[in-house]
Amino acid sequence: MTRPRVGAGTRRAADAGEFELIGELAALFAQPADGLGIGDDAATWTTPAGLVSVGTTDMLVEGIHFRLDWASPEDVGWKALAVNLSDLAAMGARPGRALLSIGVSPERREQAIGIARGIQAIATRTGTSVVGGDTVRSPGPLVVNVALVGVAEPDHLLRRDAARPGDLLAVTGRLGGAAAGLAALIDGRARDDVDLQPLLDALHRPTPRLAAGQALAAADVRCAIDISDGLASEAAHIAKASGMSVEVDLAAAPLFETAVRTFGRDRALQLAATGGEDYELLYAVDPARLDALTEALADHGGLTVVGRVLDGGRPGEVTFLDGSGPVVLDAKGYVAF
Amino acid sequence: MTRPRVGAGTRRAADAGEFELIGELAALFAQPADGLGIGDDAATWTTPAGLVSVGTTDMLVEGIHFRLDWASPEDVGWKALAVNLSDLAAMGARPGRALLSIGVSPERREQAIGIARGIQAIATRTGTSVVGGDTVRSPGPLVVNVALVGVAEPDHLLRRDAARPGDLLAVTGRLGGAAAGLAALIDGRARDDVDLQPLLDALHRPTPRLAAGQALAAADVRCAIDISDGLASEAAHIAKASGMSVEVDLAAAPLFETAVRTFGRDRALQLAATGGEDYELLYAVDPARLDALTEALADHGGLTVVGRVLDGGRPGEVTFLDGSGPVVLDAKGYVAF
Repeated sequence: MTRPRVGAGTRRAADAGEFELIGELAALFAQPADGLGIGDDAATWTTPAGLVSVGTTDMLVEGIHFRLDWASPEDVGWKALAVNLSDLAAMGARPGRALLSIGVSPERREQAIGIARGIQAIATRTGTSVVGGDTVRSPGPLVVNVALVGVAEPDHLLRRDAARPGDLLAVTGRLGGAAAGLAALIDGRARDDVDLQPLLDALHRPTPRLAAGQALAAADVRCAIDISDGLASEAAHIAKASGMSVEVDLAAAPLFETAVRTFGRDRALQLAATGGEDYELLYAVDPARLDALTEALADHGGLTVVGRVLDGGRPGEVTFLDGSGPVVLDAKGYVAF
Repeated sequence: MTRPRVGAGTRRAADAGEFELIGELAALFAQPADGLGIGDDAATWTTPAGLVSVGTTDMLVEGIHFRLDWASPEDVGWKALAVNLSDLAAMGARPGRALLSIGVSPERREQAIGIARGIQAIATRTGTSVVGGDTVRSPGPLVVNVALVGVAEPDHLLRRDAARPGDLLAVTGRLGGAAAGLAALIDGRARDDVDLQPLLDALHRPTPRLAAGQALAAADVRCAIDISDGLASEAAHIAKASGMSVEVDLAAAPLFETAVRTFGRDRALQLAATGGEDYELLYAVDPARLDALTEALADHGGLTVVGRVLDGGRPGEVTFLDGSGPVVLDAKGYVAF
């Protein structure tokens, strides 16, 4: 239920429209009583064995979410499954069975096969089985849809609505790399430019934080979200869902050195805040448990504190510290840069 | 893993290409040992509670699988979930949780909402919960993908590879109605023509045979498939998967009176044999159990014998009796009319 966007470096009205539409559609569907419906990173439902099934789906449309002059078919396949795996990671869940649909014109079958190879590459690495699929003719843009079902422990589910006052907000990995890679491609840099490799890898081959999500869940962390739309937007999602006011210190965001070197620190920070497609985790932790969690996440992207949940304040409000003073975001996460 | 096609009244090379592509993609994916992978109506995998999860997905592309001058958005939504439910019916499974993806340009949001309403209408009737989704911008054709997970009893799973010599082949409901409805629309008949209502309903609002599939599974029937590509093609799938030779008596196919009246008996029969989109079930039954099954299916589409599984003959071969003598089909189910 998250998706990358070509040209996602800036937030536009059309993007907001997509968010509104999914909310409007969600309201049409009667939601089951035994799980989370539309609104978190993934849907959940209980199974007869007392486990929780976790399901998510993402559609990628050529020209909107990927371009085959910027990414190989294998990259597109990798990412199509990776963004779904990231949703599972954000719930603390394990993969999983995947169902793949590809809409493609018959003369582009080699590209479809490349996409399937990219999916299988990350499926093998993550213990995901692609068990079913549908290939159909699509005369227009190539369309890839992945639906993924995983499993989680009912008492160890990460949710976006579980932040509590006093929690610290922390992230795995580094932010803004994918957006910087995209910005470089938009600027005309080559897709095989070795100087940009860390950024292009972040853009095309994101590593979903499955082990981190499971470690957080096992350590009784309750609140997490994956960073698909930029740190600012995801912090706003947690604030809104949890009914809390949160503060994010932009200067603390861990950046890619390559992004700082290529675009300068200010733009690298901006891309980390609003660029999106990082597929790292943003989570809320009890400060008393910081050392233990730092240890638990040492091999899984680590822990960098980037903010905190305030005691009081307006529910859903995000205050963004950027060194030159606080900037208040609206509930949708728009930053007035 | 089945899908309707606009203009599906005749089989073309491009359609065959779709089949080959899914087979080629399936070969790329390591299949799990604990269930059926790509190749049956749906994929299956075992759950910790000893039940079987059954998953399927279908993508519908505007202009290929539906046209909004022929079908309402609600019809498209109904059918998008119905074709997936039909896959579950063909496994003897119960729904289920669905994940919905819609790719649509922002100015067509009303159509997207109509599609969601159609999905909710059949979801409510069938006990399906739409628990998650993704809405993305698609500047070209509108694209709808539904992924559906249901549940079945491990010892009561309907498979296409389980036909045995001496079994009779039978179908629920009547065949060729959807293809006749489509043929009428192609001929320029109005989509609200009351004389054609049974055919247009069959085309736009198919009723997946969930109760029939469950009744067959409960009665220890082992072999079924849903009729998405026409009786001839589905009989060939059963013959090939089961390694049997089968005989289909075209003259026995139950037809829509409206189709016979509109197109004549010969064309109505041809549409039933090769037109597709019926979403009835074709199943193999022990002749000794015919009366009991007829009783069990009385309220769920009934039982009409249309052929038999031969003792001997070439594995995968279908002999098609059409009154003027037998016609042998090739393994892909093409009929030389």
